[in-house]
Amino acid sequence: MVFAIHLCYNTAMPKIVDHEEQRKHIAEAMWRVILRDGMEGATVRRVAAEAGMSAGALRHYFKRQDDLLVYAMRLVNERVEQRIMGLVRESLPPVEKAVRLLLEVIPLDEERRAEMDVWFSFMEHVRHRPDLEGVPENRLHFFISQVVAYLHHEGLLQEGLDLQLEAERLYALIDGLAVHALLESERLGPETVERVVRTSVERLCRHAQ
Amino acid sequence: MVFAIHLCYNTAMPKIVDHEEQRKHIAEAMWRVILRDGMEGATVRRVAAEAGMSAGALRHYFKRQDDLLVYAMRLVNERVEQRIMGLVRESLPPVEKAVRLLLEVIPLDEERRAEMDVWFSFMEHVRHRPDLEGVPENRLHFFISQVVAYLHHEGLLQEGLDLQLEAERLYALIDGLAVHALLESERLGPETVERVVRTSVERLCRHAQ
Repeated sequence: MVFAIHLCYNTAMPKIVDHEEQRKHIAEAMWRVILRDGMEGATVRRVAAEAGMSAGALRHYFKRQDDLLVYAMRLVNERVEQRIMGLVRESLPPVEKAVRLLLEVIPLDEERRAEMDVWFSFMEHVRHRPDLEGVPENRLHFFISQVVAYLHHEGLLQEGLDLQLEAERLYALIDGLAVHALLESERLGPETVERVVRTSVERLCRHAQ
Repeated sequence: MVFAIHLCYNTAMPKIVDHEEQRKHIAEAMWRVILRDGMEGATVRRVAAEAGMSAGALRHYFKRQDDLLVYAMRLVNERVEQRIMGLVRESLPPVEKAVRLLLEVIPLDEERRAEMDVWFSFMEHVRHRPDLEGVPENRLHFFISQVVAYLHHEGLLQEGLDLQLEAERLYALIDGLAVHALLESERLGPETVERVVRTSVERLCRHAQ
């Protein structure tokens, strides 16, 4: 289920020759091990086994375990940002676009659940690793400020709003929903998540209420 | 700083004879170890050393490490609930009481930061421990539904609101703020948190806007 990130490389894997592709393949193997065994279980040996190679071969691509960790984190970020950029280019009514953009960072399908799940494990780990260099920053606050600025630019926001405060509110709401959609999905299904997000965007806008 | 949970038992500790007190003392030692070294570092040996006893003596109070883990989690919950019950009994104007109740679960001082920090580590750990029995449930959703019901009961809410949806929204907002207040405190200080919570409660109410 959650282990099926993108392609299942385990069966009948074609030879991957490209260095960068191989690094992605290893990072995705690390994700699967973390999803299965938690961060504590993500040893070089297990990740290598999951990737179908020896620990020595893995070290050819990542000299230190920390290099792999940082790379695997960056790869999660990149995937999310690629999906967001795809949506930004779509032609949609502004409120609809804002709602769709915000929903994009909430784990409502298996792919995003896996991403969020592994991201949690990364976050909890790096909290206790102040020595770790190159950890990608969380750009969600910036992203959500941009969504609020977009609605403002389109002339849709109610008058007199403090944009910075509204961005902070929406950021907390979306991140909270993302956590709950992952951990409390029995209660909080995709439909409710969408209603909450839509209601929240509409309340910020002039006429949509 | 964050290690100073309640009393510092490390120096000149008086003899604690009460069994339950000793269990609390050990659980608090576990919190300090988790705050310092993360969940991975919270071995029986280290917790016992932090509590100033041998691993054998610790096992007198908690037969298995999991018993200690579950007890230490329940103790966090209990402390938060005690503070909330104290506030519930206070005589305050309803909107003010709602705001104060919601702020109570956001880590705005060192004690609550430590609680939330250690709670995070617990949560991340138990996600990968479906075998663990007795893990206390997260009662925050219920608590926040109660705050919304209280405002409704006081006749303060705007007409036509879907109370269940509003509880879900407020729950996501408060939990998101709690995470951000812990992890992004450089940007999100106590004053901003209070403004966000107050604005959100006032927007739900008839006249306060």
